[in-house]
Amino acid sequence: MSRWARFRTKDRVGFGVLENDGILEYDGDMFDAPRATGRRLGMDAFTLLSPCLPGKIVALWNNFHALGAKMGKAAPSHPLFLIKPATSVIGPLEPIRRPAGYAGKIAFEGELGIVIGKRAKDVPQGKAGDYIFGYTCVNDVTASDVLSENADFPQWTRSKSFDTFGCLGPVIATDFKSAGANLTTRLDGVERQNYALSDMIFSPHELVSLISHDLSLLPGDVIACGTSLGVGSIKDGVTVEVSIDGIGSLGNTLAPAGR
Amino acid sequence: MSRWARFRTKDRVGFGVLENDGILEYDGDMFDAPRATGRRLGMDAFTLLSPCLPGKIVALWNNFHALGAKMGKAAPSHPLFLIKPATSVIGPLEPIRRPAGYAGKIAFEGELGIVIGKRAKDVPQGKAGDYIFGYTCVNDVTASDVLSENADFPQWTRSKSFDTFGCLGPVIATDFKSAGANLTTRLDGVERQNYALSDMIFSPHELVSLISHDLSLLPGDVIACGTSLGVGSIKDGVTVEVSIDGIGSLGNTLAPAGR
Repeated sequence: MSRWARFRTKDRVGFGVLENDGILEYDGDMFDAPRATGRRLGMDAFTLLSPCLPGKIVALWNNFHALGAKMGKAAPSHPLFLIKPATSVIGPLEPIRRPAGYAGKIAFEGELGIVIGKRAKDVPQGKAGDYIFGYTCVNDVTASDVLSENADFPQWTRSKSFDTFGCLGPVIATDFKSAGANLTTRLDGVERQNYALSDMIFSPHELVSLISHDLSLLPGDVIACGTSLGVGSIKDGVTVEVSIDGIGSLGNTLAPAGR
Repeated sequence: MSRWARFRTKDRVGFGVLENDGILEYDGDMFDAPRATGRRLGMDAFTLLSPCLPGKIVALWNNFHALGAKMGKAAPSHPLFLIKPATSVIGPLEPIRRPAGYAGKIAFEGELGIVIGKRAKDVPQGKAGDYIFGYTCVNDVTASDVLSENADFPQWTRSKSFDTFGCLGPVIATDFKSAGANLTTRLDGVERQNYALSDMIFSPHELVSLISHDLSLLPGDVIACGTSLGVGSIKDGVTVEVSIDGIGSLGNTLAPAGR
């Protein structure tokens, strides 16, 4: 398994493979034959950025049996999704910003993210693994009161597309197997979600195959696999930490209003 | 007024200003001080492409008084939208493709598109014009049966995000004023929509301002302003032509199944 990351130093942005004591820098295209530069940066020489710059995040709704059962919703026959734009993306430790003028509830949703490695269209399920570069943690942030503000049109897109509402990171883990892994979400250290990724209605390979029959997925695009039990709201100043065994922990703080 | 277009010749992709007898080529960045190359291409030397490559299309629902009244829906207090991905975009004369395995209704929606010229965030309404590069025609294609296929989750995004479902073009007209202009949509030459753009609930400047308070708009992004009366379905093999006075006509044919 490799853990790919993007980083910023005091004078540049780069990417490489994160190890325990630093990062091995690469250049070129992360998704297409990246080249090791031979440079190693110590842990104090960089800060992590979002591990990729997706053109879009395809964000699933109702993709876990346990949450679907709690909501009283039947399992869908095809993945249900919305699109969060590139402009919503932030990386580890970057602040989540409350939309100006919005005083309502802001919810966290800890999710597994699939990072696409090559252009995917009409991919058979048995080949889906070839199109997956790796996996990351996602906090699919939502301005909950916006979602149901208009009685005629549920605002799934708007409520989830504010700048800073797509938290990704800390790394992209290759060769990760979701079947045996758990996802936990903590608010200021207190566990709020702890669910098995094996409870997904559509598995990662099914998602890549089915969604690629609808629309082309491009390198760096992310499929956010949906969340399960335990979602709730984030108070201003609280840190949300989404952790997946084998990937790492993604922490982001909801900035106090006005900061 | 200038009419900016992207084009393909037999050996390259470029952009420039479309005139009656050809195109004046430019290079650099269309949105940031493009430079005239001095080359002129005759009309038979190129085919038009989508006039920009948006990172996202922000697509409005219920933004015309007449259609809202017909649907019995109140005018919204804030723009209602979904996001169509970059991968949905096609240009003039490119075929609209029926999704594999989908035999249902495919609808046209003729719309005005606002093309963003510079990064826009929290733009006051009085400054919105500074962020608009120009205007284009949009056919916001929809797989109508997908929209209401799942009772729990209206699939606004999926039904409108299939590859080839975001038709843009033929050009981006600068200094266009929507207030006095009409949009018409013809199916194989038969008029199906003919409405005044002045009937918008949120004007282009209001849309840019309000949406930019939700999410950042980037150069080349498109806001599809929503449609009005007369939408309907496209039969396989039929050509949809969306025309706006002062911009031009955007024609796309729904490819017969299997081609």
